[in-house]
Amino acid sequence: MQKATLIGAGKLAHHLGLRLTQQGVAVNQVYSRTKKKAQQLAKLLKAKATNHLEEIESGADLYIIAVSDSAIEIVAAELAKTIDPSKAFVVHTSGATLSLVLKPYFKHYGVFYPLQSFSMEKEPDFTNIPICIDAHHKADKNKLEVLAHRISNKVFTINDEQRAVLHVAAVFVNNFTNVLYQSAAELVESKNIPFDLLRPLLLETALKVQAHQPKDMQTGPAIRKDSNTIKKHLSFLKKEHPELFLVYLQLTQLLYPDFKP
Amino acid sequence: MQKATLIGAGKLAHHLGLRLTQQGVAVNQVYSRTKKKAQQLAKLLKAKATNHLEEIESGADLYIIAVSDSAIEIVAAELAKTIDPSKAFVVHTSGATLSLVLKPYFKHYGVFYPLQSFSMEKEPDFTNIPICIDAHHKADKNKLEVLAHRISNKVFTINDEQRAVLHVAAVFVNNFTNVLYQSAAELVESKNIPFDLLRPLLLETALKVQAHQPKDMQTGPAIRKDSNTIKKHLSFLKKEHPELFLVYLQLTQLLYPDFKP
Repeated sequence: MQKATLIGAGKLAHHLGLRLTQQGVAVNQVYSRTKKKAQQLAKLLKAKATNHLEEIESGADLYIIAVSDSAIEIVAAELAKTIDPSKAFVVHTSGATLSLVLKPYFKHYGVFYPLQSFSMEKEPDFTNIPICIDAHHKADKNKLEVLAHRISNKVFTINDEQRAVLHVAAVFVNNFTNVLYQSAAELVESKNIPFDLLRPLLLETALKVQAHQPKDMQTGPAIRKDSNTIKKHLSFLKKEHPELFLVYLQLTQLLYPDFKP
Repeated sequence: MQKATLIGAGKLAHHLGLRLTQQGVAVNQVYSRTKKKAQQLAKLLKAKATNHLEEIESGADLYIIAVSDSAIEIVAAELAKTIDPSKAFVVHTSGATLSLVLKPYFKHYGVFYPLQSFSMEKEPDFTNIPICIDAHHKADKNKLEVLAHRISNKVFTINDEQRAVLHVAAVFVNNFTNVLYQSAAELVESKNIPFDLLRPLLLETALKVQAHQPKDMQTGPAIRKDSNTIKKHLSFLKKEHPELFLVYLQLTQLLYPDFKP
């Protein structure tokens, strides 16, 4: 694959576009419904910018739809009016969306899902980002595999059913751990303790499971069945942070199912 | 402080003892109720070993009780029979225990709590570990502060009430995030997906909040109020991982309180 078109100019499109370009895959065109965003990313990638889907050109080896989940199908339907639906190879980059949403519109379709949470402040290390690929036709899947290996060392074929589960799991290790960090910040800040005290601990917790299974790394009152400490914590939460009472209880019971408050 | 005695030979005692020794504070004696453990750590620290509390010698500048929470008071009571309760300076290292448990036994008492989760497999970077100190007498607190600065750049005076909250918060960012990692591992492994796919994402999540507030880093279906995705996830969990249904719901509602399943 030599030439890709990026539909979308958000965080994922931004980082993926840069990485593709660095690795010798030209991005020829960038679409965003916001003209300025398309232009900004296109400039970085030395590509053409457009905010009209009907201006998307034929002839790219891959069309990458990197827009919000709810817009994927709308964009696909529009795109199919412009580029040849029997020739164009179209993928989306979503963990939460079936590849099948593209099926009504394109003969060659698939998924190219980099499993990472991207932010504009930080350049991702793509070599370590798992790229989850799938495609309806085997030849297309092979193409995606070659492309994925150009940008990452970790490439996995993940079907729709697997990707759906992976997305739930990603919510657990990303969104839910982050809301626990946030809850912890609120807890300590309510007693004038800076959140900074907890940063080394939470980082260590994530580092420990890089080489081990989480199950083997578990510590704390719940796994020790230390009901006294658990009850102390629950009674404190009930009084001062009632919004966290049930969260504490549920997570404790995952580790200590027999615990009764 | 030139000379410390370690009561306990577990993970915390091990790493703290090594760090103190490295930084020029001699550990003269190590106690563990298991003779072999006392001997192993004592050997590393060039200290004497004992498994009898009545053999603890007078004359150390600090007695550090680093045993399990439930044993602290028992150990303190025993220790007070051996060393001079009006002269000896005794601290414990527990996040979950009041400093006051030492009060009935010693005139000079306090807390020296390194806020990190230690493991034998990995050498901790003490310079970044927050040391939470407190002591009943101001002069004692000053001594602990000087000692803490010898082993870490992050020293905080944290009173009993604050430390209790800090410990709850530590459970959130350590034990509870780890059980989310474990749940995610079970989710993906049930579909033959290796947990390794999630490791970069969970590490990135912890790295992001090193320089930012968690609140500002939140992403995902709950913060977007994407009820469709949330309902899809919940119905999948209800069917295939019912033990995670309520956890998902509770954590979602922390971010999206109006969500109704």
